Amino acid sequence: MDFELNEEQRAFAETAKQFADEQLAPNAARWDEECLFPKSELRQAGELGLMSLYAPEAQGGLELSRLDASIVFERLSEGCTSTTAFMTIHNMVTWMVASFGSELVRQAYCPKLTTGEWLGSYCLTEPNAGSDAASLTTSATKQGGDYFLNGAKAFISGAGETEVLVVMARTGESGPKGISAFVVPADAEGISYGRKEPKLGWNSQPTRAITFDNVRVPAANLLGAEGQGFVLAMKGLDGGRVNIASCSVGTAQHALNQATQYLTERKQFGRTLDQFQALQFKVADMATELVAARQMVRLAAFKLDAGHSDASTYCAMAKRFATDVGFKVCDQVLQLFGGYGYIKEYSIERHFRDVRVHQILEGTNEIMRLIIARRVLSDSRTIE
Amino acid sequence: MDFELNEEQRAFAETAKQFADEQLAPNAARWDEECLFPKSELRQAGELGLMSLYAPEAQGGLELSRLDASIVFERLSEGCTSTTAFMTIHNMVTWMVASFGSELVRQAYCPKLTTGEWLGSYCLTEPNAGSDAASLTTSATKQGGDYFLNGAKAFISGAGETEVLVVMARTGESGPKGISAFVVPADAEGISYGRKEPKLGWNSQPTRAITFDNVRVPAANLLGAEGQGFVLAMKGLDGGRVNIASCSVGTAQHALNQATQYLTERKQFGRTLDQFQALQFKVADMATELVAARQMVRLAAFKLDAGHSDASTYCAMAKRFATDVGFKVCDQVLQLFGGYGYIKEYSIERHFRDVRVHQILEGTNEIMRLIIARRVLSDSRTIE
Amino acid sequence: MDFELNEEQRAFAETAKQFADEQLAPNAARWDEECLFPKSELRQAGELGLMSLYAPEAQGGLELSRLDASIVFERLSEGCTSTTAFMTIHNMVTWMVASFGSELVRQAYCPKLTTGEWLGSYCLTEPNAGSDAASLTTSATKQGGDYFLNGAKAFISGAGETEVLVVMARTGESGPKGISAFVVPADAEGISYGRKEPKLGWNSQPTRAITFDNVRVPAANLLGAEGQGFVLAMKGLDGGRVNIASCSVGTAQHALNQATQYLTERKQFGRTLDQFQALQFKVADMATELVAARQMVRLAAFKLDAGHSDASTYCAMAKRFATDVGFKVCDQVLQLFGGYGYIKEYSIERHFRDVRVHQILEGTNEIMRLIIARRVLSDSRTIE
Amino acid sequence: MDFELNEEQRAFAETAKQFADEQLAPNAARWDEECLFPKSELRQAGELGLMSLYAPEAQGGLELSRLDASIVFERLSEGCTSTTAFMTIHNMVTWMVASFGSELVRQAYCPKLTTGEWLGSYCLTEPNAGSDAASLTTSATKQGGDYFLNGAKAFISGAGETEVLVVMARTGESGPKGISAFVVPADAEGISYGRKEPKLGWNSQPTRAITFDNVRVPAANLLGAEGQGFVLAMKGLDGGRVNIASCSVGTAQHALNQATQYLTERKQFGRTLDQFQALQFKVADMATELVAARQMVRLAAFKLDAGHSDASTYCAMAKRFATDVGFKVCDQVLQLFGGYGYIKEYSIERHFRDVRVHQILEGTNEIMRLIIARRVLSDSRTIE
Repeated sequence: MDFELNEEQRAFAETAKQFADEQLAPNAARWDEECLFPKSELRQAGELGLMSLYAPEAQGGLELSRLDASIVFERLSEGCTSTTAFMTIHNMVTWMVASFGSELVRQAYCPKLTTGEWLGSYCLTEPNAGSDAASLTTSATKQGGDYFLNGAKAFISGAGETEVLVVMARTGESGPKGISAFVVPADAEGISYGRKEPKLGWNSQPTRAITFDNVRVPAANLLGAEGQGFVLAMKGLDGGRVNIASCSVGTAQHALNQATQYLTERKQFGRTLDQFQALQFKVADMATELVAARQMVRLAAFKLDAGHSDASTYCAMAKRFATDVGFKVCDQVLQLFGGYGYIKEYSIERHFRDVRVHQILEGTNEIMRLIIARRVLSDSRTIE
Repeated sequence: MDFELNEEQRAFAETAKQFADEQLAPNAARWDEECLFPKSELRQAGELGLMSLYAPEAQGGLELSRLDASIVFERLSEGCTSTTAFMTIHNMVTWMVASFGSELVRQAYCPKLTTGEWLGSYCLTEPNAGSDAASLTTSATKQGGDYFLNGAKAFISGAGETEVLVVMARTGESGPKGISAFVVPADAEGISYGRKEPKLGWNSQPTRAITFDNVRVPAANLLGAEGQGFVLAMKGLDGGRVNIASCSVGTAQHALNQATQYLTERKQFGRTLDQFQALQFKVADMATELVAARQMVRLAAFKLDAGHSDASTYCAMAKRFATDVGFKVCDQVLQLFGGYGYIKEYSIERHFRDVRVHQILEGTNEIMRLIIARRVLSDSRTIE
Repeated sequence: MDFELNEEQRAFAETAKQFADEQLAPNAARWDEECLFPKSELRQAGELGLMSLYAPEAQGGLELSRLDASIVFERLSEGCTSTTAFMTIHNMVTWMVASFGSELVRQAYCPKLTTGEWLGSYCLTEPNAGSDAASLTTSATKQGGDYFLNGAKAFISGAGETEVLVVMARTGESGPKGISAFVVPADAEGISYGRKEPKLGWNSQPTRAITFDNVRVPAANLLGAEGQGFVLAMKGLDGGRVNIASCSVGTAQHALNQATQYLTERKQFGRTLDQFQALQFKVADMATELVAARQMVRLAAFKLDAGHSDASTYCAMAKRFATDVGFKVCDQVLQLFGGYGYIKEYSIERHFRDVRVHQILEGTNEIMRLIIARRVLSDSRTIE
Repeated sequence: MDFELNEEQRAFAETAKQFADEQLAPNAARWDEECLFPKSELRQAGELGLMSLYAPEAQGGLELSRLDASIVFERLSEGCTSTTAFMTIHNMVTWMVASFGSELVRQAYCPKLTTGEWLGSYCLTEPNAGSDAASLTTSATKQGGDYFLNGAKAFISGAGETEVLVVMARTGESGPKGISAFVVPADAEGISYGRKEPKLGWNSQPTRAITFDNVRVPAANLLGAEGQGFVLAMKGLDGGRVNIASCSVGTAQHALNQATQYLTERKQFGRTLDQFQALQFKVADMATELVAARQMVRLAAFKLDAGHSDASTYCAMAKRFATDVGFKVCDQVLQLFGGYGYIKEYSIERHFRDVRVHQILEGTNEIMRLIIARRVLSDSRTIE
């Protein structure tokens, strides 16, 4: 066992931190307040390779491991949780297209996706298929060399302002095996976008519903084979869970750092707050749980990289644990800041709002528990 | 012992609920989004007596018990947490002026305060005197028949849009015994207001800092005697804690009601969500803790009404317990709603934001713990 | 509403406290260590009326309300949790016989049960029917004027050392409607007892399995009508839940009292432990939750006395909440005592062991959650 | 980073598991019930090298890393928590003597300690110096070539049945710098032992107080230099914390394994318990937290092996986190077993009792929080 980052990982982390400090952090409050999607900064991120971290090199990606990518996302999220979270989605989309797209699709999309010139949205969730993703009803009907998409997607990150959609649609029987994945140009005829949803947080990325009305998609745009869509979606989600969990860890670490600084400066009752034992205990517990959360995330990424047979279980554990800890830490830091925690002049209330959704998306933490329980109850081999 | 509301209390509750349903609930989302202070609706509330619930009848109040008032606030907060919370502050201010003001002050202020024609702000907190309120430094220096106020207050609810300020200022020695309370017209010369603070929630009431630059206040505007200010402030806060705790209970109950309805309607995996045992358990725990929170609030109000020697301890317990439960319930209901919980189309994210501050103000929940511990550790009589 | 005990209740409480201090507390450690069933002290309790608190006066009981009885049990458990818990079971048995027994049965059993000359066991649980009590399979087959009992019961408190059994057995269809309740002499032919189960706690009352092998029971020993057994059992359990919850509250209060005394005496790092803020916070939270638990118990007892339609829900809430708080408090007090908490020289480890089972029996706390959820999800009326 | 055990570690783990299964598990219940100290089995453990896992090879130890040892203790504790915990103490004693003893001492003690022929006790805690260990008052006064020990120790594991004591005593100024460590034969003249303390758990190892009445100790028995004792003690405790945390993880994993098996077998309401979603969620959370706990322990052991400057902080985090999780898991498994969890026929109640003390000793979890907070609040470098 070895718990140290290697030199390369430390270098990636540093690059990411610099980008976070220079490009994300100074703008994050404004993007939140004005609900701005920072396409220009995302392009800059693309130039650094941050938009295609684990896509294959052959398609223009950096082909990093999931563990490397996790370390990068953790640092980026110290600058802006919401924007980094979108970057993780784009990375997932890029990886799917680059890994499972036809030659034609790869050539057409990867040069633009890997650089962040085009941005991608991941279209799985539907109004009536949230946690029960396999019950989705958006259909893709084959006619000649084309598929025709009909149906609706909900809560799509980036929708309306991205160029590429990866869409899960039903090509066959009900259940997971009848689902296929498609790359679809976001401006294809028949696609219409709902209003930009006002949200609690994640305001630097637009969220919209999408309606597909007989949208023609060439057969070459199929990712993998027909019927493989759900498998690909879940594969993507394993990584997506590690990614979003990384964003929770980075954000919470940032919040905790703010808290420790505040406690050493703020005075009450004639002493700085760091002299109060009950607050010390809170800090200790936050720091401890954060170390545990980070280890869980890295363990899951490692298992994913290793193709371990229990990788999905580890990813579910990491997502559940780290996103719960991430919110808990932000909530407690907000409390430590008192009245200052509640006003927008300080960033903690934004972190509190942004990380909250991590407990919900990429599979709710309730779904994570089901995934974990199923494995633990069906197989006596210990999950170490 | 008797745990039933009497007929009068049920009638008050019904009036409050009707006002909440008709005047508050339909507007709450807009007030939040546009940061509007609903002065006209507050005036209507005044007409129903809701702005002077426990002020003496002789001064135009309803002279209800604190328990009665708690029941009313609980119901009102089902309509709009933030607006009701402001009403509790106004009620506290009105009660202080009506109970401790000079004859002159009562005549001048009470008719307008009890009807809500004028609104009141409570000015205790300072930038460097948050939890340690007794260290406040705003000074009131006597010259002839007048006091001159100098200093600054922070996080003042309603500030800039209210007509009356109750201000705690130092007239003597350092510590609690050197503090006096004053009624001050909000537009007195020398008062200036900071910018309207953007906040996580409580957006239907403006929050501003206030600066006092040699503000002349007639001696008749002193509440109680010189040096009694901190005692009055704390007395006010005991009631204030019960009130804010009531708002947490009402809001959380409203959220839970929304959750149970949602669970019986929303389907996933072929069943309505209320069929899933893990969600049932969550509902059971929320309902249970909410009943406990409500009982704690009513117990504290009862002790306050009875002038019980441990009333402050019960109030601190009720505030700590009910505001923690209130936030926890809203947080869990948000989770139950999944993606729908995170968007502003549903009201749960607003409740989540609004109740969060209840754990911080009127004395943080950490200060509550100190108050409780001091009593429990110094006296072996059991707090029942 | 009125949260004060009346004079009579205070008098009962005092009597109970005196009995606890004089008869229970001095012996509790020994009874635990040597697994002794204190029949002589239980007889003394009977002389004070403590063995028939809410049985009808006509049958020799005190006919107190459930609320009164709860107050008494709370105080008794400050002396010995395990013995008091048995007393609650005996009280339940006595109440059932006195309320639902035939004239013959009442005359034969009540004079002895109400005085504690005879002790009673409540025989519901079976090896394969724990939480799912209604699936019990012990049968009672009618032949002429007699029933013949066959089957087995498990985890029966007092079994082997009591004189009277109230046995739930199946006289008809499967499910709850086919169950009837019987009074059975503990030494009837065909009854055999298992070994005395070594247990984590509750050692002053023996626990044994019971086997019924064609045990003849006269028809007059039926309680209520045939098929009413489950209804009676559940009715008994509502009260039983309030009772056991009362024992948790009393024990935890006793533990907390020990903790506060210890904290004011024990020195570390040059100060008494009560000077450490983190420990103060723990004390505050324990005291607060204990007040909430007590109120929940009394609220439930009040609702039970009032025949409120939601009484069962309130009882389930009280049982769940108070037994969880009871254990949590004992666990935390044990921690406050450090090494001293872990050795038998101090009583806290016994309290910790004794209250643990309260979360399990009289319906596990998981079953309580199901009962609560069922009500909350099926009816929109708020449980106040 | 690498999260996989290497081949050697897997081999050690297997050996340990086999010893646990064959020598410990079959006897653990009896040792607990009869409070037997299994000296013969400890000797057998010594033959396998398990009593000197990380003592230097030159002195007869296996010179494993702390990480290797942690893996071994984790597996051993699946067989008997209490006995394994004693083995960790013996290993610590052996390591101290072998690493810091004079040549004379090494030759005299190490051959017997490494094989388990002699057993060792670690004597730090005193009746009035628990958490505040540096305030200990047992004195060692030098006269000629000898020291004379006077004072008392409390809660000493193994005391009265071990052959070797490592004793911390004051040779100089007050505070940590005046403390020295000595190897003392357990039967030296002037040593007397208190009664065997009856305890909640850890019954396979005796606990006694020790009194030193002018006990002569040759100067050669000093470990390290005069005044270094506290540093050595704390160094020993860093490893001791990892060890005891390992025992919590192993025990809890064993309990969880029992739970999952029970849930798949036990039926209620016509289904096996593993079909109930609320129980599935509990299993998922236990499994997740257990993975996190194990990673924390291994991370700390790794940092200790690497001589990392924050190793003590990681050890404190691991001890706090893993022992809390360990008890929580055992407590919840006990609940899952219902009535069966409460009786001694099943082992879960023993695990529940045994792991409880891990939150208290080797530095209470409250002291761990202070250690962690001190580091986090004084240094802005992130603890990863």
